[in-house]
Amino acid sequence: MNLVQPGELAMFQTEGGKRVILRLEPGMDYQTHKGIIYHNDVIGRAWGSRIETHLGSPFTLLRPTLRDLLLHIRRQSQIIFPKDIGYILLRLSVGPASRVLEIGTGSGALTTALAWMVGDEGKVVTYERREDMQMLARQNLERVGLENRVDFVLSDAIDGIFESGFDAAFLDVAAPELVLNPLKPAINSGAIVGFILPTTNQVSTLLEAGVEHGFDHPDVVEILLRAYKPIPGRLRPVDRMVAHTGYLVFMRCMARSA
Amino acid sequence: MNLVQPGELAMFQTEGGKRVILRLEPGMDYQTHKGIIYHNDVIGRAWGSRIETHLGSPFTLLRPTLRDLLLHIRRQSQIIFPKDIGYILLRLSVGPASRVLEIGTGSGALTTALAWMVGDEGKVVTYERREDMQMLARQNLERVGLENRVDFVLSDAIDGIFESGFDAAFLDVAAPELVLNPLKPAINSGAIVGFILPTTNQVSTLLEAGVEHGFDHPDVVEILLRAYKPIPGRLRPVDRMVAHTGYLVFMRCMARSA
Amino acid sequence: MNLVQPGELAMFQTEGGKRVILRLEPGMDYQTHKGIIYHNDVIGRAWGSRIETHLGSPFTLLRPTLRDLLLHIRRQSQIIFPKDIGYILLRLSVGPASRVLEIGTGSGALTTALAWMVGDEGKVVTYERREDMQMLARQNLERVGLENRVDFVLSDAIDGIFESGFDAAFLDVAAPELVLNPLKPAINSGAIVGFILPTTNQVSTLLEAGVEHGFDHPDVVEILLRAYKPIPGRLRPVDRMVAHTGYLVFMRCMARSA
Amino acid sequence: MNLVQPGELAMFQTEGGKRVILRLEPGMDYQTHKGIIYHNDVIGRAWGSRIETHLGSPFTLLRPTLRDLLLHIRRQSQIIFPKDIGYILLRLSVGPASRVLEIGTGSGALTTALAWMVGDEGKVVTYERREDMQMLARQNLERVGLENRVDFVLSDAIDGIFESGFDAAFLDVAAPELVLNPLKPAINSGAIVGFILPTTNQVSTLLEAGVEHGFDHPDVVEILLRAYKPIPGRLRPVDRMVAHTGYLVFMRCMARSA
Repeated sequence: MNLVQPGELAMFQTEGGKRVILRLEPGMDYQTHKGIIYHNDVIGRAWGSRIETHLGSPFTLLRPTLRDLLLHIRRQSQIIFPKDIGYILLRLSVGPASRVLEIGTGSGALTTALAWMVGDEGKVVTYERREDMQMLARQNLERVGLENRVDFVLSDAIDGIFESGFDAAFLDVAAPELVLNPLKPAINSGAIVGFILPTTNQVSTLLEAGVEHGFDHPDVVEILLRAYKPIPGRLRPVDRMVAHTGYLVFMRCMARSA
Repeated sequence: MNLVQPGELAMFQTEGGKRVILRLEPGMDYQTHKGIIYHNDVIGRAWGSRIETHLGSPFTLLRPTLRDLLLHIRRQSQIIFPKDIGYILLRLSVGPASRVLEIGTGSGALTTALAWMVGDEGKVVTYERREDMQMLARQNLERVGLENRVDFVLSDAIDGIFESGFDAAFLDVAAPELVLNPLKPAINSGAIVGFILPTTNQVSTLLEAGVEHGFDHPDVVEILLRAYKPIPGRLRPVDRMVAHTGYLVFMRCMARSA
Repeated sequence: MNLVQPGELAMFQTEGGKRVILRLEPGMDYQTHKGIIYHNDVIGRAWGSRIETHLGSPFTLLRPTLRDLLLHIRRQSQIIFPKDIGYILLRLSVGPASRVLEIGTGSGALTTALAWMVGDEGKVVTYERREDMQMLARQNLERVGLENRVDFVLSDAIDGIFESGFDAAFLDVAAPELVLNPLKPAINSGAIVGFILPTTNQVSTLLEAGVEHGFDHPDVVEILLRAYKPIPGRLRPVDRMVAHTGYLVFMRCMARSA
Repeated sequence: MNLVQPGELAMFQTEGGKRVILRLEPGMDYQTHKGIIYHNDVIGRAWGSRIETHLGSPFTLLRPTLRDLLLHIRRQSQIIFPKDIGYILLRLSVGPASRVLEIGTGSGALTTALAWMVGDEGKVVTYERREDMQMLARQNLERVGLENRVDFVLSDAIDGIFESGFDAAFLDVAAPELVLNPLKPAINSGAIVGFILPTTNQVSTLLEAGVEHGFDHPDVVEILLRAYKPIPGRLRPVDRMVAHTGYLVFMRCMARSA
């Protein structure tokens, strides 16, 4: 059976697309401006059911997808968008039992996706130099129950990376070229490393530094997502879209002797 | 240590970006038009090493990423592109231990990515009505060693889906609206279902059918990838890009009583 | 000399990019929320000068370009964007002395561009069925001094087009397929006709009707404009962009005997 | 009447979209690989007629639009694309009687569009340092009968610009920052200047130089065009598109005293 259990994450979604994600706990309630949803009324219902507030306002009861979770990260900084994260996962070849290094935890959006994909056998080690950001990211991971797959390191990776043996790494920092030196011994030879950078100048600087530090096969891409109004008889793109999040750069770490 | 083992998948890549992916077996060799690479010379080397053919032509020795594997699928049909697959994985919330249904195996590109992500605890059930396509997809999965995570079903899903309990499904068929009826009992209530469709007319038809069959919260997007020439002092997009692969549609399956 | 003359159109632009366009008249003034600009202080200055309000707030004094004028059209409806208008002009081959037919005057943005390009030797005939829209468009054309190149017709083109001999026509109406019948005798054989349509369904309907009415060589495109933040050391696209204005369709009117 | 006259430019287009543009002259013929088209058979026909080769292969007889002419420029270098030219015309405010300066004639595509738009009252002055390119451009302009609106100057603009009083200028050269110095006295104060540059590095360099030379209000954009297959029941974008032609930069020339 596919019924909602206590302790599960649930998403309440309105017809208009507004959403809230929370963990269901017996006896608790959720206040919307259209009335109260009692968790007890939700627990035991089928996923995909239509539920109502005590004032009769309708919501759909859904299990949040990974993308839903990513969009609901509490953030103090720009998060990496799902359109980019999906592609990053493929490029980094993240999957069950992967060991991944992340430099720049930020609010923890990519950390969440990495933790989701590596499973209980895998591990994400993530560096962040700002304590407030790390705390926020940790809370975001705890909220979705993925914190035990993550090692949070409060340190600037420029000062050294204390683990090694990673097959993939991702850097979301302003000057990743400064981290290439400590990065190299931390990752396996041949490992793939990804970067996200907002400006073209940063991309140029990184590409130049990459060659100097023995990284090769660079690849630079940008991903654009265009949404459509899902109306069968009047199908058309929405009026506005995100024009830019960042350039994605990927390189391979060459073997020292190579 | 991070040395190449016999039996591993390896990728030989030229400076110019040409690649071949194969499984390394002692005593075997690979003929390029620039000379022969003996597997024995490669086994035991560090990943990321520079290797040479017997004529001295250089290649880099790399572990293929999931994206590399997807681009090297042998195909008789248009495959789903990595840019789309990454986003599909997030939207379908595929991860370790997922049970996913795929309708339209095709050459097996998405099947490969799904099998990669669900791990040994998960399962991909994939329907295909053409025997030659199924055989090709099975070979593609075998080549990368993921075939044991996949149940290949040779059948038109219009005639019925014989498994159930899926939390996510993806349909890559020309008329998915005809499959919504057998699909509904096969997937869990609330499950998310994705589709890829090349034409706007197909999208309109599907959106209309979705509502009739109790699917809701439709979402239509397209993903564009633009690559750049990775030259630090002359950074610019490449001249040409893929303008269209398909529209991605996602919907939720509402509970019957809802 | 290139000095500002009384009676000229001028644009006052702030460093931040805010703009106002007005006609300079001796003795008049313009109230900004940062102080007053006296027209007398502006007349006789060099174009490109820095001017100030009576409170010392700086503005640049510029002659508005055609694109500036288009962006400052007063509108009750969605206007056609400069990115689309530029391409339409090339496709319709509008230039000095052209005679162009427009169906759907709207707020008069395209009308303005057409009137600009045809010069005093040319003529734009524009149909609009709503009197309020026509009045607004006429005011917009008068404001930039181009109204004498335009014949405003208050009529639904479905009921007939009373002029003929046009080498090009553009239709910005919801159901242009209904106008193809009256359109055909109004335009020269071989003439090129353009359309803008927001939805894919409208495009399909028009393409089908075009064939039935003897229009041929259809072409459908969309134009996207992405702006960059013009900061040399941090060059990057802006955060958001217009995702869609409309699909542009162009067809040729075949000769009757053809 | 709208009949084809001797001496006119005509375009023969196949159903599949192949085109040739030529000037019709009594007694001449055109050899296609599907047979011969005799000019005498075409002269006197209605535009938009279906014509046939002596072997019965069908073509449509069309008056070429400005965009058709631009696509048929004979070229030794990359031409500026219609998608960019249309927008450039709006930004430079080119129209009847404009006086426009072009630096970098190239094959003459933009020159052709500028000459078309300025009419007989206007003038295009265009600089090119390579004699072979200038000759090619001149031939391209002569072929479409617009050469008398253009002054071709064989000189590197870095060495000086010998005319003045332009309200608009466009530079298509590799290092436009080197031309800003001679450019400034040649154009009117407040004039708008446009540039096309393939790389992000060139854009950064230009933006920096612009500020130093008293140019202001910089604007950087890129224009993308996506074509659709015009099939009503299977409407979709074409498979591939141009990913990049160049970044368009526009600036205003501030008054010296400003």
